[in-house]
Amino acid sequence: MSPKITTELLKQLRQVMKNPKFVQEPVQAYIVPSGDAHQSEYIAPCDCRRAFISGFDGSAGTAIVTEQHAAMWTDGRYFLQAAHQMDSNWTLMKMGLKDTPTQEDWLVSVLPEGSKVGVDPFIIPADQWKRMSKVLRSAGHDLVPVKENLIDTIWTDCPQRPCKPLITLDLSYTGVSWRDKIIALRSKMAERKVMWFVVTALDEVAWLFNLRGSDVEYNPVFFAYAVIGMNTIRLFIDGDRMMDPPVREHLQLDSTLEPEFKIQVMPYGSILSELQAVGAGLSPKEKVWLSDKASYALTEAIPKPYRYLTPYTPICIAKAVKNAVETEGMRRAHIKDAVALCELFNWLEKEVPKGTVTEIIAADKAEEFRSQQKDFVELSFATISSTGPNGAIIHYKPVPETNRTLSVNEIYLLDSGAQYKDGTTDVTRTMHFGTPSAYEKECFTYVLKGHIAVSAAIFPNGTKGHLLDSFARSALWDCGLDYLHGTGHGVGSFLNVHEGPCGISYKTFADEPLEAGMIVSDEPGYYEDGSFGIRIENVVLVIPAETKYNFKNRGSLTFEPLTLVPIQTKMIDINLLTEKECNWVNEYHQKCREVVGAELERQGRHEALRWLLRETEPLARVQ
Amino acid sequence: MSPKITTELLKQLRQVMKNPKFVQEPVQAYIVPSGDAHQSEYIAPCDCRRAFISGFDGSAGTAIVTEQHAAMWTDGRYFLQAAHQMDSNWTLMKMGLKDTPTQEDWLVSVLPEGSKVGVDPFIIPADQWKRMSKVLRSAGHDLVPVKENLIDTIWTDCPQRPCKPLITLDLSYTGVSWRDKIIALRSKMAERKVMWFVVTALDEVAWLFNLRGSDVEYNPVFFAYAVIGMNTIRLFIDGDRMMDPPVREHLQLDSTLEPEFKIQVMPYGSILSELQAVGAGLSPKEKVWLSDKASYALTEAIPKPYRYLTPYTPICIAKAVKNAVETEGMRRAHIKDAVALCELFNWLEKEVPKGTVTEIIAADKAEEFRSQQKDFVELSFATISSTGPNGAIIHYKPVPETNRTLSVNEIYLLDSGAQYKDGTTDVTRTMHFGTPSAYEKECFTYVLKGHIAVSAAIFPNGTKGHLLDSFARSALWDCGLDYLHGTGHGVGSFLNVHEGPCGISYKTFADEPLEAGMIVSDEPGYYEDGSFGIRIENVVLVIPAETKYNFKNRGSLTFEPLTLVPIQTKMIDINLLTEKECNWVNEYHQKCREVVGAELERQGRHEALRWLLRETEPLARVQ
Repeated sequence: MSPKITTELLKQLRQVMKNPKFVQEPVQAYIVPSGDAHQSEYIAPCDCRRAFISGFDGSAGTAIVTEQHAAMWTDGRYFLQAAHQMDSNWTLMKMGLKDTPTQEDWLVSVLPEGSKVGVDPFIIPADQWKRMSKVLRSAGHDLVPVKENLIDTIWTDCPQRPCKPLITLDLSYTGVSWRDKIIALRSKMAERKVMWFVVTALDEVAWLFNLRGSDVEYNPVFFAYAVIGMNTIRLFIDGDRMMDPPVREHLQLDSTLEPEFKIQVMPYGSILSELQAVGAGLSPKEKVWLSDKASYALTEAIPKPYRYLTPYTPICIAKAVKNAVETEGMRRAHIKDAVALCELFNWLEKEVPKGTVTEIIAADKAEEFRSQQKDFVELSFATISSTGPNGAIIHYKPVPETNRTLSVNEIYLLDSGAQYKDGTTDVTRTMHFGTPSAYEKECFTYVLKGHIAVSAAIFPNGTKGHLLDSFARSALWDCGLDYLHGTGHGVGSFLNVHEGPCGISYKTFADEPLEAGMIVSDEPGYYEDGSFGIRIENVVLVIPAETKYNFKNRGSLTFEPLTLVPIQTKMIDINLLTEKECNWVNEYHQKCREVVGAELERQGRHEALRWLLRETEPLARVQ
Repeated sequence: MSPKITTELLKQLRQVMKNPKFVQEPVQAYIVPSGDAHQSEYIAPCDCRRAFISGFDGSAGTAIVTEQHAAMWTDGRYFLQAAHQMDSNWTLMKMGLKDTPTQEDWLVSVLPEGSKVGVDPFIIPADQWKRMSKVLRSAGHDLVPVKENLIDTIWTDCPQRPCKPLITLDLSYTGVSWRDKIIALRSKMAERKVMWFVVTALDEVAWLFNLRGSDVEYNPVFFAYAVIGMNTIRLFIDGDRMMDPPVREHLQLDSTLEPEFKIQVMPYGSILSELQAVGAGLSPKEKVWLSDKASYALTEAIPKPYRYLTPYTPICIAKAVKNAVETEGMRRAHIKDAVALCELFNWLEKEVPKGTVTEIIAADKAEEFRSQQKDFVELSFATISSTGPNGAIIHYKPVPETNRTLSVNEIYLLDSGAQYKDGTTDVTRTMHFGTPSAYEKECFTYVLKGHIAVSAAIFPNGTKGHLLDSFARSALWDCGLDYLHGTGHGVGSFLNVHEGPCGISYKTFADEPLEAGMIVSDEPGYYEDGSFGIRIENVVLVIPAETKYNFKNRGSLTFEPLTLVPIQTKMIDINLLTEKECNWVNEYHQKCREVVGAELERQGRHEALRWLLRETEPLARVQ
């Protein structure tokens, strides 16, 4: 991977930063966040402005360019990747390390007095604008909205915004109709005494209307906004997608409906003016509910006294708690996913020793096996197929320049998942196709102990996920080891593979408490720069736990693994496991055998079934 | 404990809330926070306004009185106590439970449109003012400062503000002179480019000047403020305490000093006007550093653009990391404290079966034994001496009406500590003087497992204490049990028994990372309402840990117990302990024997020594 040469681009950007055609006054710094106008994590090619200007294409990062400097903030997952992809024009700011300045503090330290800092008001979330603006103002600078995106002015071959056909999901996939979701939403609005709710996140629009799209790779969403009133529904969406008969029927666009369920379809680009009109027509006490992460531009459309901002929207919270139909769908999806991975690992075991399987071939093969499964739509993220030192690059994606051949001498880490119409998967397994070293087994076993500590944890109702994060690290910490990423994220139901409001991470505290029906990942790891990476990831469902006592009738919760793929026992140093941990592995493998075994049998995949049976032999502890 | 009858008082308060003599405009609600003008946790009798108006005298709570309602917010430690102490005029708001409204939300729900909510601007911290004011304003109400404290207007027999003599501490107790502390503070100020620092917390003033007082019970502090400039030192303090020759000498008030170390002594009451003068004289870019918990009144004295507010002050952070002299002092204090408790428990063991020892007698006896130790000053908090059901009242303090007799049939919980000139102690032991039930032993053992999990935890440098909180709960959670308080708090060095910025609690996230030299408590518990309470508390010192590997050279930390008092082995169900936990207990008891045993020997306390030796017999696991 050679870095992108950005000298000329930065020169052009610095010119437009002073060009009165694009800026009212010259800006001394320009911020390029990684998001799109919906604050999506995964974005369409036309929105990859930060990657365009810097070369760094990881999922998280913010670039800031001043007259003299170009700096990139990203987190521990991407330190290595960002360092590889950016040229010497750029300074890497390692977030989470003690001495790394915040973007605001850095700006204050480098800017000349009375500077203007520009940013696209549609891209920057309102909460971030507020925080930055305050710090900059108190240091004598100004954060200013630059209407025209300055990257777009220099990006001559910028791709078009996608506008792909929609998929409608019926009750057998969603469990609840869009009409009932609107009713529930309006009741939450009434509770908080708000008259309007603005849906800005793409997965929230998709979830609310039981529609899916493919405008963004890996995330089955489509570019749209919605504005829900107590008596109106407005959907802002482009293209002739609304001409499609199944979509018209699904949304009942041509039916005679009570007016409060009649959907008004409007152009995507008209959201700002429509919202400004809503804002202008409000009478006192009429509030408009927005996410505090909605763009600054949309938030400003509503006059301040009428805004009701919350970190999590009622849709985000409702979406996180999966209903019985969604949970069953997620189970089905994970069984199919396990079938594909049993096929893959069986195939790898035979092929790797021949020296012909590269990271890219392995990733493609994983996709091939998945695509054979019913209701497969696409992958849920770019497959992390990494062997040896590449495994230490936490969010690695193999490209021809880095593509390494799998061998019997190196650890192989595969983090992959798919979108099926009935659910979203995300699983990581770390395998050795030869003989792992004692040290590799030791590290793997600590990671496994952490994985089990979270998966088997019992905790009271009302517990926030971040309080479980240390359980995943304890065995590593005991030996002075750690990993620089969170332990888990929420997972959507045929939606984004990363979703709020729950998760398991020491970095957050504003997560919502875990509730039965929520689905998160459990993925501790260990990474040794330059040699190997280990991660063990299951998607797990929050379920009620039976306990001996039931303190103050609060009830308890625990996790049930939805992922049912064998954990390579060859990598386990059994002497480091407690009896309880050993039993956990054996019970987990027994369940893989029963559930996935039956499906392999049903699909006539006998060789993969034999592989599964062999890989799920119980561990026997030598006392 | 019968509740305080508050009908008449509330009537009087509601009258002054409308009396133009005291309020510019009538206020529809009046907030009575628990703090004083320094946001102290422990307050002088003249500042106990919330207890006066409600009867509830726990250390934490906020009262709000409206025309119709009187409500009290407090946390899990005090649910039972508050319910006992307040009459039916009051509604208890249980903080931390899901359905309890915040003060702001509650006010919005009960107030008529356009209400004024009054509060004493010297008592409410600026951060809290800001938060409340914002929510109230957005709901059409106003938070207004009421200059005259309305409680004081109806509190006819309010005691006088104390003004006791000061104690000077030399280098053999503090390790660092006040002059060097000022130099270090000014260097932190220079780093942040601030010109002034306002010391508002009483323990910060005491620490900075190496002085102690006794204006507030249990906390060796005195009423004072300080304003430190780059070239000036102003100490605001009342009374003739500054006439005392040792104090004058200690502060070098009569010496010829470089002007930047010359202390100007000013009246306590002049802080506001002096600060306003500082505020008025600032030139652009001259900032004034205050805690964001400083009172609204003092914060407002500095015009907004000149304020530099942080959650923790540089003094708070410096004070938390104890130097070698302070650490040695803390060790000495804990050995003396252990001697006193060995004497006490030996005495209780003989006396309890006679049926003559009440909770108050036991508490007094504990104080008597402590007062025999060198450099004893006073207790560090009101002794929690509680048996049977009283043990479930987490911050119980025995009074004649509740005073229960210790017996061989009930669990006894003693949470006590002292101020010695060389250190502050805080220890809880839970004992049974007869035969505990299997269930009591089971619960005790879960609490012990939690205590050990924290005490023996190894974690990377930079870890915040709140991430260790779940370790203390895991064994309880497994059985569906829990406790509704944090696991640990920072402890001062001959200073407040509760101090920031570190701690171990799920309730917080803004704690500063743990550092070698910090001192915290480790005190999980379990409380069964109406029957018993269990808590096991040691004060522990953060120390570097040696680990097998050293991930990215970050270094690791662990804890060393400073408290060396036997944990009653009779209460332990050894079958529930792992081998590692069993070894921890045995090693801990071995250290108690060696260190405290030697001191008991030296002090000629042979009977207590025999008790210690018996109580520290190693546990033997039956396999």
